[in-house]
Amino acid sequence: MEALDYHAEERRKAEFDVEEMKIVWAGSRQAYEISDRVARLVASDPVFRKDNRTMLSRKDLFKDTLRKAAHAWKRIIELRLSEEEASKLRFFVDQPVFTDLHWGMFIPAIKGQGNDEQQQKWLPMAYKMQIIGCYAQTELGHGSNVQGLETTATFDPETDEFVIHSPTLTSSKWWPGGLGKVSTHALVYARLITDGQDHGVHGFIVQLRSLDDHLSLPGITVGDIGMKFGSGAYNSMDNGVLRFDHVRIPRDQMLMGVSQVTREGKFMQSDVPRQLVYGTMVYVRQKIVADASCALSRAVCIATRYSVVRRQFGSHNGGPETQVIDYKTQQSRLFPLLASAYAFRFVGEWLKWLYTDVTQRLQASDFSTLPEVHACTAGLKSVTTSATADAIEECRKLCGGHGYLSSSGLPELFAVYVPACTYEGDNVVLLLQVARFLMKTVSQLGSGKKPVGTIAYMGRSEHLLQCRCEVERAEDWLKPNVILEAFEARAARMSVTCAKNLNNFPNQEEGFAQLATDLAEAAVAHVQLIIVSKFIEKLQQDIPGKGVKRQLEILFNVYALSLLHKHLGDFVASGCITPKQGALANEQLRLLYSQVRPNAIALVDAFNYTDHYLGSVLGRYDGNVYPKLYEEAWKDPLNETVIPDGYHEYIRPILKQHIRVARL
Amino acid sequence: MEALDYHAEERRKAEFDVEEMKIVWAGSRQAYEISDRVARLVASDPVFRKDNRTMLSRKDLFKDTLRKAAHAWKRIIELRLSEEEASKLRFFVDQPVFTDLHWGMFIPAIKGQGNDEQQQKWLPMAYKMQIIGCYAQTELGHGSNVQGLETTATFDPETDEFVIHSPTLTSSKWWPGGLGKVSTHALVYARLITDGQDHGVHGFIVQLRSLDDHLSLPGITVGDIGMKFGSGAYNSMDNGVLRFDHVRIPRDQMLMGVSQVTREGKFMQSDVPRQLVYGTMVYVRQKIVADASCALSRAVCIATRYSVVRRQFGSHNGGPETQVIDYKTQQSRLFPLLASAYAFRFVGEWLKWLYTDVTQRLQASDFSTLPEVHACTAGLKSVTTSATADAIEECRKLCGGHGYLSSSGLPELFAVYVPACTYEGDNVVLLLQVARFLMKTVSQLGSGKKPVGTIAYMGRSEHLLQCRCEVERAEDWLKPNVILEAFEARAARMSVTCAKNLNNFPNQEEGFAQLATDLAEAAVAHVQLIIVSKFIEKLQQDIPGKGVKRQLEILFNVYALSLLHKHLGDFVASGCITPKQGALANEQLRLLYSQVRPNAIALVDAFNYTDHYLGSVLGRYDGNVYPKLYEEAWKDPLNETVIPDGYHEYIRPILKQHIRVARL
Repeated sequence: MEALDYHAEERRKAEFDVEEMKIVWAGSRQAYEISDRVARLVASDPVFRKDNRTMLSRKDLFKDTLRKAAHAWKRIIELRLSEEEASKLRFFVDQPVFTDLHWGMFIPAIKGQGNDEQQQKWLPMAYKMQIIGCYAQTELGHGSNVQGLETTATFDPETDEFVIHSPTLTSSKWWPGGLGKVSTHALVYARLITDGQDHGVHGFIVQLRSLDDHLSLPGITVGDIGMKFGSGAYNSMDNGVLRFDHVRIPRDQMLMGVSQVTREGKFMQSDVPRQLVYGTMVYVRQKIVADASCALSRAVCIATRYSVVRRQFGSHNGGPETQVIDYKTQQSRLFPLLASAYAFRFVGEWLKWLYTDVTQRLQASDFSTLPEVHACTAGLKSVTTSATADAIEECRKLCGGHGYLSSSGLPELFAVYVPACTYEGDNVVLLLQVARFLMKTVSQLGSGKKPVGTIAYMGRSEHLLQCRCEVERAEDWLKPNVILEAFEARAARMSVTCAKNLNNFPNQEEGFAQLATDLAEAAVAHVQLIIVSKFIEKLQQDIPGKGVKRQLEILFNVYALSLLHKHLGDFVASGCITPKQGALANEQLRLLYSQVRPNAIALVDAFNYTDHYLGSVLGRYDGNVYPKLYEEAWKDPLNETVIPDGYHEYIRPILKQHIRVARL
Repeated sequence: MEALDYHAEERRKAEFDVEEMKIVWAGSRQAYEISDRVARLVASDPVFRKDNRTMLSRKDLFKDTLRKAAHAWKRIIELRLSEEEASKLRFFVDQPVFTDLHWGMFIPAIKGQGNDEQQQKWLPMAYKMQIIGCYAQTELGHGSNVQGLETTATFDPETDEFVIHSPTLTSSKWWPGGLGKVSTHALVYARLITDGQDHGVHGFIVQLRSLDDHLSLPGITVGDIGMKFGSGAYNSMDNGVLRFDHVRIPRDQMLMGVSQVTREGKFMQSDVPRQLVYGTMVYVRQKIVADASCALSRAVCIATRYSVVRRQFGSHNGGPETQVIDYKTQQSRLFPLLASAYAFRFVGEWLKWLYTDVTQRLQASDFSTLPEVHACTAGLKSVTTSATADAIEECRKLCGGHGYLSSSGLPELFAVYVPACTYEGDNVVLLLQVARFLMKTVSQLGSGKKPVGTIAYMGRSEHLLQCRCEVERAEDWLKPNVILEAFEARAARMSVTCAKNLNNFPNQEEGFAQLATDLAEAAVAHVQLIIVSKFIEKLQQDIPGKGVKRQLEILFNVYALSLLHKHLGDFVASGCITPKQGALANEQLRLLYSQVRPNAIALVDAFNYTDHYLGSVLGRYDGNVYPKLYEEAWKDPLNETVIPDGYHEYIRPILKQHIRVARL
C-alpha cells in the first residue's frame, strides 16, 4: 500500500530535480548525506521526542533537556561520530542546552585566547566533558558595550592570585547559557587590575561548582535568571546569574594567549596581533547566518505545505475551495521568504569561504581586508537575523489561526529564534558599525585607495551616482546585471548622501549621532547588495540537475525584485530607477510568483527536513494536517479530566448562584 | 521619606500638564476616574496577582484563571459595579478567560439575533450567570469563509426539533474560547436545512454540559484544543473543539430575530433588515481598535521607561553612560510607536461616535453610509492590529536582551495580542474588502454619486491626481493641511492606478486576484489617511491643560511624517512629493524627536497604568529595574534547589566519565 501523501499531486508538478536541489541546499553531496543520515538517526530515537515540549513545566523541561544532552553525548561516543556529525546531531536535537555553550563558546575561546600551556591543560578535560564550561561576559547592566563591564580581576602579588569580584549589582553576570544550574567552570570576562591600574577587559577561567557534589564554591552566588519568551523554546536553557565575592583563582587562569600578567604583576601584551580574534568572529557570524537560513527555511517549509492544504473561499458549484497558496496576497508574502531562505543559504556558504580566506591572511599577517570583512559580517549578521525573525512571524500569520497553536511549531520557533537579533551584537549597533565603515570608504574615495571585496563597487561610484537604469519592459528586470547595478547605485547613492549630510555638521560625531537612522538605512542597502551579488555569483557556478539552475534564477529574481519593491522609496528617491520602472518590477514579480507556484512544495522539500525536526503538524511531509491536529488536541493536560480542576470551587458556585456566600 | 523614584528627574522635564493629558487619553474626566479607581482596586487585590503567571503549568494556570474569574464576579456583585465598571475590572484583571466570550459574544449575539421571546428567556439566566455561554462559529476547516461552514442543523418536523450534526472532521468547531472546559451552552453556527433545502448559516443555542454535574450531554464531544503561543498568555483560555453526533434541540433554540422556521418547517426571512447586524460589527471593531491602543501604549510605556534607565556606551571621563533613549536610532523606532498609540486612541474614540451615528441611521432605515462604514471599520481593524502586533515586538527589541525575559512583560503581551490580527476577520482579507469598496468608489466617480464620510476626498480626485506638494523647507511639513493633502493624494493616486490596471484585464475578478497585493497596499494608504485625518480633527477640538495641545501636535507630526518616511516609495513614485521633499520630511522628523524626548516619560505616564497592569519589571513606575530583575530571577522554580533535578542521572555520569556504562 502506498503511504498517504496529500502533497503527491503537488510534488508531481515540480519542474526540476529535487534530489539535486537537496545537494545544492546542503552545499555538497557529502554534507547532504551526513545531514540526512544524522537527521534520521535523531528522528527515530524516542529519547529525542519533542512534541510534548511546550506542555512541560520549567523543571520538567529542564530535566528533559539534561536527559537529551546526556543521551546525545552517549550516542556521539557509541557511534564514534566525527566532529561535524556530532555538531549535526546536536543541531537536529533542536533544544537549547548547556552543551551549545560548552562546545560553541567555552572551548573555542580557550583555543583562541589561551596560550599553548593553557590549551594543553584545559582542552583535553573540556573535550572529554570532565569539566563543563560556559561563557560569562554579559552583565546585568552591560551588554553591547563590552568595554564597560564592571567585574574586576585584581592581581594579588602576595599570593600570585587574581581576586574576582562583583563590585555592584549591575556587575552581576547575567544571561550566560549553561551558567544557571550546570556549568562547573566559566570563562569570566573582567577588568584586569594590577597595581591599581585598569588594563581593560580580559578572560579568566573560574571554577564555579565542586566537581564532587556540584555545590557552588565559596564566594560564588549562582542561579537561573528565570523564564524567557514562549513555552518550550529557550526555557530549556539555564541562562544564569553569577556574583563573585572576592573569589581567588591562580594567576595562570587568566587566558594569556594575547596578554599576560607576570609573577611580579606586570601586564604585558604578547606579540600575537590582537586582530587574530577577528578570525573567531567571522566564524561565529558565519554560523549565525547559516542558522538564519535554517530557521527561515523551516518556517517557510511549514507555511508552504500548509498553504497547499488550507482551502478558503472560491468554491464553484460545491467543488473544493481554493488552496490559499493560489492567492496572490499569499504568494507575495510567502515566496519572497522562500527566496530569502535560499539567498541567505548562499551568502552563508560564501561566508564559510571568507572565513578560510581571512584565516589564511591573518596567518600571513595580512590585515588589509579586516575592516571590509568586519563590516560585511556584522552587516550580514544583522540583516539576516532581523529578516528571519520577522519572517517566522509572517509565516505563522500565513497559517491563519492554526499557526497560533503550539502544535504548528511556529510559536516556539519564533520564541527560540528572536534572541539572535540581540546576541553577538545588537542588530542596530552592528548596522552603525557598518555605516562607519561606509563613511570611511566614501571619505577615502579621492585618496587613490581602492575599495576591495564587497565594497569594491564604491570604486565605481562616479558612474553609479549618475547611471540610469535601462529597464523598458518588465522582462528587462530578469537580467542579473540590471538588478546588480540598481542595487549598487542605491547603496552608493545612500552612502554618499549620508556622507554629504554629515559634512553639514561641524562635529562629525554629533553628525553621526543625529543621522544614525539614515546611516543604518544606508548600511542595510549595502548589505542587501552583498546578498544579491553573492546569489548572482552562485548562479554563475556550474549547477547540475534538470531545471535546478532555472529555479534558482527565478528565486534570485523574486528575492531581488521583492526587496526592490519593499524599499521602493530608496530606489526612486535616489533616482536609481523611475516610478515607471518600479511598476514594471512589480509586474515582473507577479509573473515570477506564478512560476514559483508549481514548484513551491518541491522547493521546500529540498530542505530535506524530517517531520521530527520541523516539529509541526501543519508542516507534515504527507499533508495529513486536520486529523493530526485533532489528535494532538486531546493530549493537552487540560483534557486529562472531563471536569476541570477548579470546577467545584469556582464554576459551580457561580452557576448555582452561591457566589455571595462562597469563600473563593 | 520620599518614595524611591528614579524617573523623578525625567518627570520634572515634562513641558505639559500630565494630569490633563490623562483625561485626554481616557476620553473624559469620568472615564478617567472610573478607570483609575478600578485599576487600583484590581492592583491591590492579592487574588489578582499575576507576576507568577508565566511559570504555571497549563492546569495550574487554568485553575488560577477560574479563581480570578469567580473572584471578579464576586467583587462585581459585592461592590454593585456598573456595567462599565465591571467591564473595566475584567480588563484590568488582564487574563483571557471564558467570561470574555460570555459577556462579549454570547450575550450580545442573543441580544442582536434573538427575537423578544428568546431574549426574555435566555438573557436573565445569562446575566446572572446561571448559564455560561460561548460563541461556536469557527471550524477546523473554516475560518474566514463563514458561508463555507459545514455543521448542519436539520429540521425534523416530526419532533419539532433541529438535529445538530458534524458531518466531517473539518466541521468540528475549533477555537471558540470558553468552550473547551467551562461553557454550559454554545451559540452554534450551522447550515439550516429544512425539507432537504440549505438556507445558509444561522445561529442555534445548544446546551453542551449538564447544569448538575458539568458532564457533556449525549452526542457531544468537547475538549480543549491545546497549548497556544507563549507561556501564560492565551493558555488561560479553554479554546475548544466540539463535535455533534445528531444532537437534538427544540425548534425555538434557533435564533429567530432575523429568520424563522415555522412549526411546519417553513423557512421565513423576517422584516427586520439584515443590515442591522452591521451595528454590532461596528461595535466589535470599535472595541478592537480601542484594545489596540491599549496594548500598544502598554508596550510603549515599558520600552520608554526602560530606555531611560538603560545606559550603554558614551561614558566620558568615567561618568555614567548615555541613556539609550538619547540615541536617535532608539528615538526613531520608539517615538513613532508612542505617536501611534495616541493616533489609534483618537481614531478609536471617533469609532465610538460612528457606532452611535450608524445605530441611529439604521433605526431610521438609512443604509446609505453602510458600505463606507464597513470599509472604514474593516480597514481600521486591520491596520491598527497589524501595526500593534509589530510594535509590541519592536518594543521588546528596544529593551535589548532583558526584553526577552518573561519578567519584562513583553513576551506575554506579544503572545496574547497577536491573534487580533487573525480573529474577527483576517487582516489581509479585510484589506481586500476595503479595496473592493475603493474600486467601486473610483468606478462611480463620473456618475455624479458623491462620495461621503471617510471617502469624501475621492470627490476631489481630479485635484488630488495633479496637485503638487508645496513644501520648500522642513518646517512646512508641520502644517496639518500639507500633510493631509499629501496623504489624500497618495491614497487617491494609488486607488486610481489600481483601477486603471484592473481595466487591463478582460475579466475584473481575474484582475482583482492578480492585483491583490497592489490593492491591499492602496487600502492601507486609505486607512492611514483616515487615522491622520481623525488625529487632525482631534487637534481642532478644544483641548485644555498647559501644553497638552502642543504635545499632541508634535505627536501628530511624528505619526504622519514617520508613516511618510516608511512608505516613501508610495509618495514619491506616485509623484505626490519629490525626493527632496521626502528628505525634508525626514529632517523635520529628526527635530521632532528632540522635542518628544524631554516629554517621553510624562507622555507614557499619561496612560495611567498601574505597575500591576503593566506587569513588567522593566516598565516599573519608579524605574527601580535592576534590583527587581535580580529579585525576580530567584523565584524561578529551577532555583528551588541548588542541585537541579536530573543532576545525578544526567550530569554527574558525564563529568565522571561513566557515560559509556550508564543507562540514561
